[in-house]
Amino acid sequence: MRTAEQLRPLFDERRVLVTGGLGFIGSSLAHALVGLGAHVVVLDALFPEYGGNRRNIAGIEDRITVMIGDMRDQRIVGNAIVGKDFIFNMVGVLSHIDSMNDPWADVEMNCVAQISLLETLRRYNPGAKVVFAGTRGQYGKARTNPVDETHKMRPTDINGVNNVGGEAYHFMYNDVYELRAVSLRLSNTYGPRHQMKSPKQGVINWFVRLAMEGAEIPIFGDGSQVRDAAYIDDVVLALLLAMASTGCDGKAYNIGAFAVPLIDIVDTIIAACGRGSRRFIEFPEEMKQIEVGNYRADHSRFSNTTGWTPRVALTDGIERTVNYYRDNQQYYW
Amino acid sequence: MRTAEQLRPLFDERRVLVTGGLGFIGSSLAHALVGLGAHVVVLDALFPEYGGNRRNIAGIEDRITVMIGDMRDQRIVGNAIVGKDFIFNMVGVLSHIDSMNDPWADVEMNCVAQISLLETLRRYNPGAKVVFAGTRGQYGKARTNPVDETHKMRPTDINGVNNVGGEAYHFMYNDVYELRAVSLRLSNTYGPRHQMKSPKQGVINWFVRLAMEGAEIPIFGDGSQVRDAAYIDDVVLALLLAMASTGCDGKAYNIGAFAVPLIDIVDTIIAACGRGSRRFIEFPEEMKQIEVGNYRADHSRFSNTTGWTPRVALTDGIERTVNYYRDNQQYYW
Repeated sequence: MRTAEQLRPLFDERRVLVTGGLGFIGSSLAHALVGLGAHVVVLDALFPEYGGNRRNIAGIEDRITVMIGDMRDQRIVGNAIVGKDFIFNMVGVLSHIDSMNDPWADVEMNCVAQISLLETLRRYNPGAKVVFAGTRGQYGKARTNPVDETHKMRPTDINGVNNVGGEAYHFMYNDVYELRAVSLRLSNTYGPRHQMKSPKQGVINWFVRLAMEGAEIPIFGDGSQVRDAAYIDDVVLALLLAMASTGCDGKAYNIGAFAVPLIDIVDTIIAACGRGSRRFIEFPEEMKQIEVGNYRADHSRFSNTTGWTPRVALTDGIERTVNYYRDNQQYYW
Repeated sequence: MRTAEQLRPLFDERRVLVTGGLGFIGSSLAHALVGLGAHVVVLDALFPEYGGNRRNIAGIEDRITVMIGDMRDQRIVGNAIVGKDFIFNMVGVLSHIDSMNDPWADVEMNCVAQISLLETLRRYNPGAKVVFAGTRGQYGKARTNPVDETHKMRPTDINGVNNVGGEAYHFMYNDVYELRAVSLRLSNTYGPRHQMKSPKQGVINWFVRLAMEGAEIPIFGDGSQVRDAAYIDDVVLALLLAMASTGCDGKAYNIGAFAVPLIDIVDTIIAACGRGSRRFIEFPEEMKQIEVGNYRADHSRFSNTTGWTPRVALTDGIERTVNYYRDNQQYYW
C-alpha cells in the first residue's frame, strides 16, 4: 500500500501548478502537495457557477501562490506554467446538466481551455508532466460492470464528449510532442471542500447538505443504481501516484473506490448526520435522458501499476465530510 | 450489389440539406441527390482555405438552392434545416496540418459548428436524420490491420480528436434526443471536384495535379505506406446507403475501398497522366509527428448492413479524375 508520505522525495521542493486549484479536488491536492514540500501555484478562474472557493485553501494560503485567471487566456497560462515540473490539470470536470443546457460553454471550458494549456506547455515548458482529471462520464452507460479502460466510449452528455476530447488532446500532445500526460477517469468523488450550493457537480456532497439541514433527500427511482464513491483523500493519492509513476505516462486509468447502491449512500449520510430523511421520486425527464445506470470502476490497471488502493470506507468518508462541514458551514452554504 | 438508382424511391421528392455542400464530397452528393429527384439545399461558408468551389455544382446550379453561410451561426442553420428530411453533414473533415498549427480554428469548425447544427436540429427539426462524415484519423496509428470499428481511438492530431468529438456529439443526440445519426469514418477519398490548390485535404488529388503539370511527386519515405483509396462515387453511394438504411442508425462504420502502397498510387497517377515523375524524400519533421502508418479499413460491418461494396478500381478512378481536371483545370488551379 502506497501512502502520500512515501512520495515526499518526488514532490519536495518541486514546482507544481494545480489548475482549478481553488476547487474541490484541486485545493485538496494543493494541501497534500504543500504537506510534501512542494512549491504550489494554483490557477483558478473562480467562476461563480463552478466549485472554486477561497476557503478551500485555509491553512495553506500563505504557503502557496494563488493566480486568479481564465485558462483560455494564454498569457495567464504562460505565467502559470513557466518553470513548473508538474501540472495537475483539474479544470475539466463540470456539470452534466449545464453542458446540455449550454453546450458551447462546456466546449469553451473544456476543449478551448485544455488546448490553451497544452499549446502553451508545448511551446514554453515541453518537459512538464500533466495529470488530467477525466471522468467516468466518458463511457456513458456501462455495458458491462465493472468498467475497465477498454470499455466503449459513448457519452450521454456534452460534458462527457468534451472530456473524451480533453483527454485525447492530452494523449495527442504526449504522443506527438515531448509532453508527458496521464488521465485518471474519476467516478463519484466526495468529501471536504466540495461546493455545497447545488447538486450539479456531485450528488453525494449535496445529500450531505440536505441531511445536515434535516431535509428530505430525493432519490430518483428505487435507489438501487450503483455509484462508485471515492473519498477525496484516496483520489488525491491516486493523482499524486499518477504523477509519480513514469509507468503511467501516456495512459488512462479508471479510479473508483466503493461501488454501492445510491440508497446505501443516502442511509449512510442520514446515519452520520443523525437527521434528514429520504423520499423516492420519479426520474425527472432531463435526468432520465442522461442517467448512466450502474457504474462500478475496475481500477485494477491503476492499482497494478502504482500499488494504489482505496482506503477510506464510505462510512468513514461520510463522517469526515459531515464533520468538515459542521466546522465550516458558513463558508459553503 | 446496391446502386444509387435503387435508392430513388427513398430520395425522390425528399428535402435534403448538404452541409459543406460546395466542397468535394458534399457537391458530389448534391449531384447524386439531384439525379435521384431530391430537393437539395447546400450550405457552405466558402472559406477560401477549405474546399468549397462554385464550379462543383456546374450542371445542377439551377436545380438546387445554395446558401452561403457559417454553420456556427444558428440563424443560418435554422433556415437551412427547416423542413428537411435528411442532413448530410460534410463539414467536419479538414486539414491535419492546419489543425496542429491552429487548434482553436479546428475546434471552431468542428466542435462549435457541429453543436450549432445538432442543437438547432433537436429544437426545430428533431425528426431529421443526419449522416456525419467522420475520418480514419479518429483512430490515429493503426495497431492492427485491417482496422475495424472497435479499434482504439488515439488520434495523432487535433483534427482527429475533434472528429472523435464531432461523431460523439451526433451519437449523444441520437441516444438522448429524437434525432437519428450515422457516422461514416472515411479514408482517402479522391476524385473530381476535390480542391487542387494544396495537398492539405488529400494527397491523391494533389499528386494528380503534380503529374498533370509534369512535376515531380515527392514520396515521403519509401512509399510502402498503405493508403485506403476510395473513389468519390463509391463514397457517395455509401453515404446514400447510410441515410437509407435504418439499420445504420446510431452506429459508426468504416469506409474504405482499395488499400494500396502509396507508391502504387503514384505510379497509377503518372501512368494515367502520361507525364510527371516521382522522387523519394525524407519525412518532413511535421509530417513524421502525425504520420499514421499503414491503414486498411475493414468495411465489412457496413457492407454486411447495407450491401455496399466499392466498385471503382484505382486505375479507373484515377483515369476519371485526370479526365475531369483536364476538362476543368481552369476552375481548380
